[in-house]
Amino acid sequence: MEPWRTAIVEASDGTIRLRGHDVTSLMTERTFTDTIFLLHRSRLPSDAERALFDAILSSVADHGSGAPSCAAARLAISGNRSSVSAAIAAGILAVGDEHGGAGSGCMEMLAAGLERASRESLSIEQCAVKVVTEHRAIGKRVAGLGHRVHSKDPRTPVLFDLARQHGLAGDGIQLMQAIGAEVVKQVKPMTINVDGALAAVLYDMGFEPTFARLIFIIGRVAGLTAEVMEELTRERPMRIRIPVNYDGEGGGTSSESE
Amino acid sequence: MEPWRTAIVEASDGTIRLRGHDVTSLMTERTFTDTIFLLHRSRLPSDAERALFDAILSSVADHGSGAPSCAAARLAISGNRSSVSAAIAAGILAVGDEHGGAGSGCMEMLAAGLERASRESLSIEQCAVKVVTEHRAIGKRVAGLGHRVHSKDPRTPVLFDLARQHGLAGDGIQLMQAIGAEVVKQVKPMTINVDGALAAVLYDMGFEPTFARLIFIIGRVAGLTAEVMEELTRERPMRIRIPVNYDGEGGGTSSESE
Amino acid sequence: MEPWRTAIVEASDGTIRLRGHDVTSLMTERTFTDTIFLLHRSRLPSDAERALFDAILSSVADHGSGAPSCAAARLAISGNRSSVSAAIAAGILAVGDEHGGAGSGCMEMLAAGLERASRESLSIEQCAVKVVTEHRAIGKRVAGLGHRVHSKDPRTPVLFDLARQHGLAGDGIQLMQAIGAEVVKQVKPMTINVDGALAAVLYDMGFEPTFARLIFIIGRVAGLTAEVMEELTRERPMRIRIPVNYDGEGGGTSSESE
Amino acid sequence: MEPWRTAIVEASDGTIRLRGHDVTSLMTERTFTDTIFLLHRSRLPSDAERALFDAILSSVADHGSGAPSCAAARLAISGNRSSVSAAIAAGILAVGDEHGGAGSGCMEMLAAGLERASRESLSIEQCAVKVVTEHRAIGKRVAGLGHRVHSKDPRTPVLFDLARQHGLAGDGIQLMQAIGAEVVKQVKPMTINVDGALAAVLYDMGFEPTFARLIFIIGRVAGLTAEVMEELTRERPMRIRIPVNYDGEGGGTSSESE
Repeated sequence: MEPWRTAIVEASDGTIRLRGHDVTSLMTERTFTDTIFLLHRSRLPSDAERALFDAILSSVADHGSGAPSCAAARLAISGNRSSVSAAIAAGILAVGDEHGGAGSGCMEMLAAGLERASRESLSIEQCAVKVVTEHRAIGKRVAGLGHRVHSKDPRTPVLFDLARQHGLAGDGIQLMQAIGAEVVKQVKPMTINVDGALAAVLYDMGFEPTFARLIFIIGRVAGLTAEVMEELTRERPMRIRIPVNYDGEGGGTSSESE
Repeated sequence: MEPWRTAIVEASDGTIRLRGHDVTSLMTERTFTDTIFLLHRSRLPSDAERALFDAILSSVADHGSGAPSCAAARLAISGNRSSVSAAIAAGILAVGDEHGGAGSGCMEMLAAGLERASRESLSIEQCAVKVVTEHRAIGKRVAGLGHRVHSKDPRTPVLFDLARQHGLAGDGIQLMQAIGAEVVKQVKPMTINVDGALAAVLYDMGFEPTFARLIFIIGRVAGLTAEVMEELTRERPMRIRIPVNYDGEGGGTSSESE
Repeated sequence: MEPWRTAIVEASDGTIRLRGHDVTSLMTERTFTDTIFLLHRSRLPSDAERALFDAILSSVADHGSGAPSCAAARLAISGNRSSVSAAIAAGILAVGDEHGGAGSGCMEMLAAGLERASRESLSIEQCAVKVVTEHRAIGKRVAGLGHRVHSKDPRTPVLFDLARQHGLAGDGIQLMQAIGAEVVKQVKPMTINVDGALAAVLYDMGFEPTFARLIFIIGRVAGLTAEVMEELTRERPMRIRIPVNYDGEGGGTSSESE
Repeated sequence: MEPWRTAIVEASDGTIRLRGHDVTSLMTERTFTDTIFLLHRSRLPSDAERALFDAILSSVADHGSGAPSCAAARLAISGNRSSVSAAIAAGILAVGDEHGGAGSGCMEMLAAGLERASRESLSIEQCAVKVVTEHRAIGKRVAGLGHRVHSKDPRTPVLFDLARQHGLAGDGIQLMQAIGAEVVKQVKPMTINVDGALAAVLYDMGFEPTFARLIFIIGRVAGLTAEVMEELTRERPMRIRIPVNYDGEGGGTSSESE
């Protein structure tokens, strides 16, 4: 087999370099957030970029033990107490389009909208009207809006304000806010949720859509590790019993699980 | 890199051989259960062995949507609808010592007990008394006994009877039953559960302890695939809300999850 | 939380029913393959359906240690020797559109093609010409064709012949073969691979496209368990060293991995 | 089902609190590393603790594409291009006692050694002699020593120096270094590797052994996300072919994988 090629890490006896930066200098002079940024952008962040990254990562670290990611991790460690790797992995596997992954679709929507605005010489507001109208016409939900718990997601204005204070706000945030306002006008009050907020900020920082999902996972692993430890130290093995009703062939009575 | 070595599959243009058997003859002349046995024993099963394998695999295929494995798979597909691989993997990750994995520990207990019975010239019954007494002395649960739902696990007598009918019952089943009876005498009524039953049968069939966990996983994947499909086709994305109470720093009110 | 609903398993003290069938009767009177079929179709298979299922499951059980699924499982157990669940899950996670999952896309292609043939009163052959021509026009690969190892996949004629012998062959197999022949004519010789073959057979048996991926996973878990055991029993921990060349910022020399 | 209890996150309309801290203040005033520390210690870190955490997290972020974790993630995304969650999870599943998990065992060794030193009034050096001698007597490897690539792991002195500069160095580091020196004397030159180094530092910071594995996973996810993106953007699907030699029943020729 030919060796694989990589531009990420170079390691030889006594030396480890990440994207050309010696790991020992990253360890002493830089934060973990800098290392995350470096791994994905091949350069260190500015102070502004670091501030936004820190805010995004903390914003998605955890939102409660009952979210699919946290609950899946807890179920896994409840039945399989000897592997924290397995439980954390189970938690990550629940992250997808519907949970933690809407940011990617939202970045694609922003990119397509802005590309079109430029091509058709539309204002951001005109573009937002078109985006919302066309989603409604085909019955598709606009990504990045609405939250089961929050009528106003408290993380969104923090991310947008930080981006503005640090001079990183651009068309992405503007379009996302215009789309949010247009949905309120055409449909009903819906908050721009954290997925929509981080998507807009990451777009303005120059990231590709897939990165919205990756940064969610990096942040969420912090919470998953805490959830797994709490389950392991506070609760008995197999303490979780999800109640189930059988409504299939020949049934009628309630059913319990093993 | 040197090539890896393997004694499982040999594939070249137009030919695939599993443990030396052409895959096309397995496909036309053998059952999937035969292939599972072949992959793990490097020979095809006898009719008796096939019957026991079929019974074990069906016995653990599913026991209800609320078991950690099935519930973790459902949570994963609920948040991440686009990957059935991810959801099935999440379900398997909940299989461990406490859920679906007790059979391995039970096989080790049987092997150690029988080795000692032989060394110390104990009868099976004397051996069972020692095993139970010593577990109680150190406060350790005897593997393979008790079930949250079943006062008598219906799968156990079926496996033991099948093994006897097919001439495969040996010291493993005898010792497991003696241990079960001794626990009833010394402690309280407890059923030999399916983990204990399949452990005894697999021991008598000559398998290593780890295989008890592997056969559970092979069987359970059948159920996990059905659970994932049911969640995908009958339920809305993100429909699962695990209720959570916050009892930490500065709290007091109920908390919802995202 | 309201109880979840399910039509798969009903369990209560002393009883376990899968799709209305007592698990003890499945264990004594039926094969594991029957249980798999039952879980997904809510009825037991005919002899013909069982024969096809057995053939499909054995056909995909394993194709060599170096396939992404098997290699990922081996890497996982090489670094994490204490969890077979984790390693098997890692193997399943490598199953997707490109590996083991092409059958789902292929079933969708067959369904769309046959629906159109019916709507536009096309013969199967005319339909195949359109499918291939249109794929070529947009530069999309036709699903279910070609194999890295096999110029003629030996599993394909076995599946098609079995389906015909058992009276289960229908339009799906016919269209798949016509598409295969048309690609040979328009492009180059390419074998109908096992993904294309099982897709056609499952279509004719009345399954939904997603099931092609599920049955691949069920079958492949048999092989993954054997691959994991071989790595665990024959090889040292961390024996795998993938050679890597660094070609990024400031590099030039070869790089080793930890 | 009774609600689950948690002391990690409290969320209600418009508010999210992590361990009693409002997420919006964490986002604006704190780093991601602070949030990680908070989630696991229920308080914010001192400047010294943050510096150590940043250094540990960056030290394990990545060490090359060929490590089991990174290679398993690459194999998964190579076969299953549509799920980055699945690939990152596969990478985590390769983390265990042999890869990235030695720190936990090392912390247990340090805790047991220091507890004994205190009980038997041994000096750190006397304790180190006993630890090494007893490992050798039973043929067990001392955790946290040796590295496949590094004769001197460059990350270790950085971590130990940082701990000393920040006044966080204690008996854990002292014992780890004494054990390292004793192995050099009794056996052969072996470097204290990053697992041994972070174990000693985390012990002195008051963490439980399991946390060594968790912090490795949190740090490594940063690298895994970059490895997955590189595979996705630079390489073709299924480009990885692990070469395999068949040496089983009836074989002799080389075997290729699918």
